[in-house]
Amino acid sequence: MTAYTATVTVRLKHGVLDPEAKTTQRALDRLGFELSALRSADQYEIDLEAPSTGKAREQVTEMADRLLANPTIHDYEVQISER
Amino acid sequence: MTAYTATVTVRLKHGVLDPEAKTTQRALDRLGFELSALRSADQYEIDLEAPSTGKAREQVTEMADRLLANPTIHDYEVQISER
Repeated sequence: MTAYTATVTVRLKHGVLDPEAKTTQRALDRLGFELSALRSADQYEIDLEAPSTGKAREQVTEMADRLLANPTIHDYEVQISER
Repeated sequence: MTAYTATVTVRLKHGVLDPEAKTTQRALDRLGFELSALRSADQYEIDLEAPSTGKAREQVTEMADRLLANPTIHDYEVQISER
């Protein structure tokens, strides 16, 4: 078994309203910053052991499908690195 | 001016309690997944224009210092890429 750290980034799908991002962008505008867009995402860093990178990716993808992301509104991305 | 996308990842400092991560980890445990640790982070993707990568990084670092991160409890990391 090898120790891996998986990073799961969960983003809202294109077209899904993101009031938190809107509020943050407006606050930055008010502070005088000029930005064209701001998107927010949730990131999970998961330490786990698995026999291979492929198996680690499989497990973490299942975690994302079952709990971390809501397929109706979210897209997600999994990155695996050895710890 | 060049168009950049900056990614700001805001993490809780080591030792700061993270009840959201604890709850998520416990839920994954209950679903039968085996993981050694789970940390959560907030990520902001910011589209902006700047004369150089250095200037873009400077602006985004200031946004993080002034609004996106709370230096008492957060560490953050800025990545800049051309759009």
